[in-house]
Amino acid sequence: NRAALAKRAAPCTEPGFSCGYSCPMGEFDLIDRFFKRPVQRADLGVGDDCALLPARPGHQLALSTDMLVEGRHFLSTVAPAHLGHKSLAVNLSDLAACGAEPRAFLLSLSMPRADETWLQGFSQGLLALADAHHCELIGGDTTQGPLNISITVIGDVPQGQALLRSGAQVGDDIYVSGNVGDARLALEAFRGTLSLPEAVFARCRARMEQPTPRVALGMALRGIATAAADISDGLLGDLGHILKQSRVGAQLQANACESLLACRTDMALPEHWLHTCVFSGGDDYELVFTAPASKRDAVLAASSQSMTPVTRIGIVTGGNSTVLLDAAGQPVTSRFASFDHFAKD
Amino acid sequence: NRAALAKRAAPCTEPGFSCGYSCPMGEFDLIDRFFKRPVQRADLGVGDDCALLPARPGHQLALSTDMLVEGRHFLSTVAPAHLGHKSLAVNLSDLAACGAEPRAFLLSLSMPRADETWLQGFSQGLLALADAHHCELIGGDTTQGPLNISITVIGDVPQGQALLRSGAQVGDDIYVSGNVGDARLALEAFRGTLSLPEAVFARCRARMEQPTPRVALGMALRGIATAAADISDGLLGDLGHILKQSRVGAQLQANACESLLACRTDMALPEHWLHTCVFSGGDDYELVFTAPASKRDAVLAASSQSMTPVTRIGIVTGGNSTVLLDAAGQPVTSRFASFDHFAKD
Repeated sequence: NRAALAKRAAPCTEPGFSCGYSCPMGEFDLIDRFFKRPVQRADLGVGDDCALLPARPGHQLALSTDMLVEGRHFLSTVAPAHLGHKSLAVNLSDLAACGAEPRAFLLSLSMPRADETWLQGFSQGLLALADAHHCELIGGDTTQGPLNISITVIGDVPQGQALLRSGAQVGDDIYVSGNVGDARLALEAFRGTLSLPEAVFARCRARMEQPTPRVALGMALRGIATAAADISDGLLGDLGHILKQSRVGAQLQANACESLLACRTDMALPEHWLHTCVFSGGDDYELVFTAPASKRDAVLAASSQSMTPVTRIGIVTGGNSTVLLDAAGQPVTSRFASFDHFAKD
Repeated sequence: NRAALAKRAAPCTEPGFSCGYSCPMGEFDLIDRFFKRPVQRADLGVGDDCALLPARPGHQLALSTDMLVEGRHFLSTVAPAHLGHKSLAVNLSDLAACGAEPRAFLLSLSMPRADETWLQGFSQGLLALADAHHCELIGGDTTQGPLNISITVIGDVPQGQALLRSGAQVGDDIYVSGNVGDARLALEAFRGTLSLPEAVFARCRARMEQPTPRVALGMALRGIATAAADISDGLLGDLGHILKQSRVGAQLQANACESLLACRTDMALPEHWLHTCVFSGGDDYELVFTAPASKRDAVLAASSQSMTPVTRIGIVTGGNSTVLLDAAGQPVTSRFASFDHFAKD
C-alpha cells in the first residue's frame, strides 16, 4: 500500500489490492474483479493495510518467495492460465520440500498494462491451483512496469517436523518423486536445439508450463525423510544442496536416474541429451529426498498415500562427491559421472 | 528456489538465497555476502527451501507486500542505501497501520546485473532499518531482469487488537502523525514544476527518500485507535479508505491540515501547492487514525511514548463525504473542499 511517483491530482479510492498506478486508474479496478474473493481461512484478507492470519498452536511458519520475470522464467508465448499455475506452483514446491502445509499467499504483480484477457487467464490458473491446495490469496500489490510476478507463500508445519536440507545421513537411500528432465526437453525444443515428435513435445511442454508441486508427498514424508529439496535447478544441483548442507556424498545408479525421464519410452534420445536433461534439467519441481534404509516401507506408504510415484536412485555416502555408477557398480564415463559439490567452497 | 529458463550445463551449488541466474554465476555469489547473516529470532533463515519462524501464542500474523519499480516508485538517481531503506520502510508502514510488531521479511530482487557497489549500499540501508525494528531477513530470491524490489513483511499482533480501516465511529477524532506533503514537494522539485530553496529541498528529499515507518506509534495505539491506515497515496485518499470501509464521513479543519506540511514555515507556498501536497501528496508513510474523543489523553500518551508527534485534524461524521472547514467552521473553497469517497461505487 504505497504511492507511485507519478502522482495524481485527485485522491485514489480503490479498495482491495493496493495499487501503484497513477489515477485515473479505472482499468485497474478490474484487478479486484479477478483477485479479490471472500475471506476463507484468514482473519482478514485483501483490502486493509495488512492481511491477518491465525497462527496454529504447536506449528512453525514456513515461508518462501519466488520472483518470475518474462523471458527468463517463462516465455512470452505461455498461456496466461499456465503462467498463473506455474507462478504459484514453484512457490508451493518450496513448501512441499519442507513438508509444510500451504496456508496463504501474497501476490505482487508488475504489468506493462492491465490486459483483461491476460488477467482473466492468469487469475484462473493461479486461483485454481490455490483452491486445490486450500492456499488463500490474502494480499498483494500491483503496479505498472515490466512483467514481473512475485509470490510469497506461507505454510506451517508441526513444531520440529520440517524437512530440512541438512539432515541426510551416510547410508540413507536417495529418492526422487515423479519424472525429471522432460521440462528441459521442452525448453530445448522451444530453443530449436532438438526436435520432438508432436505428442512428446506436448507432454514435455505440460511438464515445463504446469508443474505439479508435491505438497502431499512432502507432508507424508514428515518423520520419514531425513532431508529434502525441490528440483528447480536440476537433480545434481539440488541434491547437491542436500549433500553439501548435510556434509555427505552420494552414489547414484545411472539407470535409475535415466528412468526418471518420462519420454525416454516414447523416443530414442542421445545419451548426451538424456543425461543433460535428467541431471541438470531443472524446472521439474519434483522432490529429491533421503530416508534411512529401514524406512523403505514407510516411504512406499507415503508415496501411495500421496499418490505420487517415487524412485530410489542411490545412497548417501561419506565424502564430498556424487558418483554415478552403472548396473555393475562401475563408474560411468559421462561429464556428469562425478560432481564435487564442495568445489565452490 | 526455482530454475531460470536460460539453463546451464553444470549444476548450480549456490547456498543461501535462491538464484534464478544461469550459471556460472560467480558474480551472484556476492548477494549472499550482502544479505545472508546468522539467524536471530527465526528458527531457520536464508539457505533452505523455506524459512521457519516460530508463531507466538495468542497472536495473529499480519502480512503485507509491496513492489517497487524503477522510474515509478523511485528515481534512478536515488542513493542505493536510501532505496534499501525505503523499500523496507513502505512495508513496515503497513504493519504500523495495523498496530503490528515487525518479525521478519522476505526480499525478491530483480536486477539487470549484480553491481557490487549498488548491492552494498542497498543492503546497508535495508538491513540498518531492519535491525532498528528487529525485523529479520529470512529469505529471498534474486534474478536478472529490470530493477524490481518486492518485499513481504511478517508481523504479529495480539489476537483481536489489530487496527483495521473499518472501525471508525461517528464522533471520533481524526489524527495524523508527523508531517504530510513534504515528500510530494520534493517530487515536484525533481520534476521541475516548482523550485525550492536548497535547504528546504534537502529536507523534503529526505522525507521522500527515507520515510519513517510509524511502527512504535501503531503499536502504542492498540486499544485506543478505532481505525488506522498509512498515508502512501495521499491524506484524503487514505483517510477515504478508512471512511469508506467504516461507512462514515469526515469534517477536516483546513488550518490543522495545512500545519502538517513541515516546510510551510520555511517558505511561502501558493495555496494550490499547499493543498495539493497536503491532501493528495502521498509517499509520506505517516499514519492517519481515528479515536474516540474520550481517549484524547491516551492518544497523547501514545504519541509521547512512541516519540511521534500527532495532530488532530477533524472529526468523523455521518454521511459519505469529507468536508473541509475554515477556522470559523465555514466550508473552504478549494478543489479539495469536498471529496465524495463513495463516488466510485
